[in-house]
Amino acid sequence: MSHISEVFLGLFVVFFAAQVGAEIAQRLRLPAVVGEITAGIVVGGSVLGWVQVNEPLEVLAEIGAVLLLFSVGLETQVEDLRKVGRVAVLVGIGGVLLPFILGAAWAKVSGIDTPKALFIAAAFVATSAGITARVLKDMGVLDHTTSRVILGAAIIDDILAMLLLAVVTSLQGGEALGWVGLLLVFIQAVGFVALIALVGTRVMRHSSPWLEVPINPLSPLTLSLALCLGLALAASFLGLAAIIGAFLAGMAAAETTQREALEKQLRPILALLVPFFFVVTGSKVVLADLGNLPALEALAIVTVLAVVGKVVGSGLGALRLGRLEALIVGTGMVPRGEVGIIIASLGQQAGIFTGQTYAIIIGMSLLTSMIAPPVLGALVKRGQAQSDLRREPSEAGAAIGEIEEIELQD
Amino acid sequence: MSHISEVFLGLFVVFFAAQVGAEIAQRLRLPAVVGEITAGIVVGGSVLGWVQVNEPLEVLAEIGAVLLLFSVGLETQVEDLRKVGRVAVLVGIGGVLLPFILGAAWAKVSGIDTPKALFIAAAFVATSAGITARVLKDMGVLDHTTSRVILGAAIIDDILAMLLLAVVTSLQGGEALGWVGLLLVFIQAVGFVALIALVGTRVMRHSSPWLEVPINPLSPLTLSLALCLGLALAASFLGLAAIIGAFLAGMAAAETTQREALEKQLRPILALLVPFFFVVTGSKVVLADLGNLPALEALAIVTVLAVVGKVVGSGLGALRLGRLEALIVGTGMVPRGEVGIIIASLGQQAGIFTGQTYAIIIGMSLLTSMIAPPVLGALVKRGQAQSDLRREPSEAGAAIGEIEEIELQD
Repeated sequence: MSHISEVFLGLFVVFFAAQVGAEIAQRLRLPAVVGEITAGIVVGGSVLGWVQVNEPLEVLAEIGAVLLLFSVGLETQVEDLRKVGRVAVLVGIGGVLLPFILGAAWAKVSGIDTPKALFIAAAFVATSAGITARVLKDMGVLDHTTSRVILGAAIIDDILAMLLLAVVTSLQGGEALGWVGLLLVFIQAVGFVALIALVGTRVMRHSSPWLEVPINPLSPLTLSLALCLGLALAASFLGLAAIIGAFLAGMAAAETTQREALEKQLRPILALLVPFFFVVTGSKVVLADLGNLPALEALAIVTVLAVVGKVVGSGLGALRLGRLEALIVGTGMVPRGEVGIIIASLGQQAGIFTGQTYAIIIGMSLLTSMIAPPVLGALVKRGQAQSDLRREPSEAGAAIGEIEEIELQD
Repeated sequence: MSHISEVFLGLFVVFFAAQVGAEIAQRLRLPAVVGEITAGIVVGGSVLGWVQVNEPLEVLAEIGAVLLLFSVGLETQVEDLRKVGRVAVLVGIGGVLLPFILGAAWAKVSGIDTPKALFIAAAFVATSAGITARVLKDMGVLDHTTSRVILGAAIIDDILAMLLLAVVTSLQGGEALGWVGLLLVFIQAVGFVALIALVGTRVMRHSSPWLEVPINPLSPLTLSLALCLGLALAASFLGLAAIIGAFLAGMAAAETTQREALEKQLRPILALLVPFFFVVTGSKVVLADLGNLPALEALAIVTVLAVVGKVVGSGLGALRLGRLEALIVGTGMVPRGEVGIIIASLGQQAGIFTGQTYAIIIGMSLLTSMIAPPVLGALVKRGQAQSDLRREPSEAGAAIGEIEEIELQD
């Protein structure tokens, strides 16, 4: 087989497997990402062995991840952050802190050294707003208070997760550094994120009219893609994950008036390239690593911790909305989805995770993404039934008033 | 510098250089492709040396070329072919035959053996409808008879170029084959093209309603992309260029009711990936290969042959439209653009071309793409002035009648 045939064989198998996996997942009412990762596991070395991950596939997967995080950043508007309200801030912080502590504790108890344990903990932190948003949208409750809190908190989670990832990545080379060195690394990581998130978004807001000059119908897209690649490069120069730069580029681009057009134009690009990330990531899972009782026990424990961390951590932040509402919010924050998987793949590439830890983190990301939607659906339904029973206009008015008030306070 | 930084450095430099080059070209009223290739030459090894072409960049470039030819195929509807009329068929055939003969003659005279000479000749054959269509559109004459003939003939040219490319690629390994072997190779190449072009398009036409099932808003796109990668793979298995399969996949997808949606969704993907093809292709040009008198002479001769071949070959086919009209049609067929460049890059990859031949073919593709637009513009203006002077309603009616008649005859 010629080299070019080999390359196209890889491309075709990966892309086709992703479509089949996503289709099956959707028919089973599971998130598409679950299907694509599972497809990767199936065509990968540990089952069919149809895909040999070579450098071109690796780079395509990396580009897919970078563009995916760019699109997550594009959904993160600074303006929205100001609107989310105090409850969402509490939910977001609670949903980062408790999972991070539980993840780090599990890793330390498992005998992993501190810098690696912190990296593993970062994978516990992410929230995939996409999976939850879809469930809420399907149930027609996207404009309810709890839904708005979940989606606001997910934005805060994404930013905190990137910040945390920047710090824990910087720490990985840090065993030789003293406290001063660690502090410098920390300041550099936080400084980069803050600079782009605060100054970059402001610059983009003011340069919007310039971007609108219709040189070429796709110019805002190509400029944004160049910004995305440029900041991904800058992040990797600083020793940070390239996806952090891409996420920040997305946040900056979200401030332009072109945001909606960009989101639309990005969709076909994501449809082509993101499957490469998920399938390649799945294909690296060695099923044998999970084929023993201790590993399965660890997967079960990690998944329970990941679920408890979000339900309790985020739920506590939402308690003033009512108990059931707090449970709905906590459950909505459970799916780790793509962000958890990206952090897992970074840990695997950097040699921070063993094959077994990698398989466990991927497994946890998939399980949380599979468990949460049906539970969330059931809880939302119960909430709807309850509010039908006790619906009193004054009460509904008061609840809305409270949220408005929270928003105004910020 | 870490490996991942190196990868992103390459991606960023290539993509950014392409945007700068395209922007400068557009301001100079030159086709964007000229700017992107020139940007590639500048950042490549022979000027700045900023881009080291590594395997990931090579694969991205290949994917860009494949998707570009898929989009060319998507513009090639079987129905349109039936409508183009006898004049367009004559123009298309004349514009393939004469350039092919002139190209092969030049290569043979230069002492190149027959299979390679035929490959070089194939690079003379291509027509870039895109560049001409843009000039005609800017002048507001896209619906004139000559414009319709040019665009119809360009479709025929693309199909004949792909068929020719299939045959000459197959011949490259063929020195050891006897006549029977060569015949089998020929039949295989033609058979593949004919099978997909005739049967594939028909199947797609009938499966259109199935494609419309709204499983997912991007499904027709992802199915078409899978078809594109699949036929590119099939073509490369048969020893043909992957782009031939992609072109045929585009032709098949053009038969579905989703064609316009596909074209629109494909545009952002092309904006991201095609620059990689052009810049990588440009970066492989070693300017020193053109830095001597014989090489420059050869470039001049090849360019003149390429221009004469199209103006005379296509012009003769259009003679019944009038002399000036024939000259307009012939000039409109001159730009080789992206298809000529793709064939050049295939020849370079396969080791069929020396560095100098590669530089000459790329140079010729660029020069024809740069010369034709202003000349075409001037000719169209002269034609408009003439028709203003001698405008007689009956004559215009007769000319239109003649075209209608031609269409009916087919």
